[in-house]
Amino acid sequence: MSAAEGSVLIGNKNVMNYVLATVIQFNQGAKRVSIKARGRAISRAVDVAEIVKSRFLKGEVDVETIKIGSEQVGEADKKRTISTIEIVLARK
Amino acid sequence: MSAAEGSVLIGNKNVMNYVLATVIQFNQGAKRVSIKARGRAISRAVDVAEIVKSRFLKGEVDVETIKIGSEQVGEADKKRTISTIEIVLARK
Repeated sequence: MSAAEGSVLIGNKNVMNYVLATVIQFNQGAKRVSIKARGRAISRAVDVAEIVKSRFLKGEVDVETIKIGSEQVGEADKKRTISTIEIVLARK
Repeated sequence: MSAAEGSVLIGNKNVMNYVLATVIQFNQGAKRVSIKARGRAISRAVDVAEIVKSRFLKGEVDVETIKIGSEQVGEADKKRTISTIEIVLARK
């Protein structure tokens, strides 16, 4: 991943932590930041993208692509499928 | 909205309710079904799309578009912004 691309993995912290992480990466020169989440954190990933796009960097960045998918988590007999999302924001 | 287009609004019920609603609309002839959700239900909407695409209608439908946005909810002084998602599944 080149310096022009950033990435933020959404966990269980407050949404503003991830908003600031995304804004900081853009301010450090990233042309594109990929916001990734799994399971229940998916809603928070959409919140982060919307807050960055509509408030913090309004008019400067936009949604480039959104991909959804699923992956297997857990061990042997406790395997289960969990949904994933990747939202790429890019500088206009 | 023509008969060829269906729509499912995700609420708080079990995910399988919405999976079946989506599959039924495709079986009734819909070419495209739009899965919509707000707030915390966004994760469930991604689950529904993934389960329909990867299990129930595997190889028959695919994600056509995904749009995120936000809208205002609540009255006068209690207004707040909530994120939204629309995932359109279409027959191949």
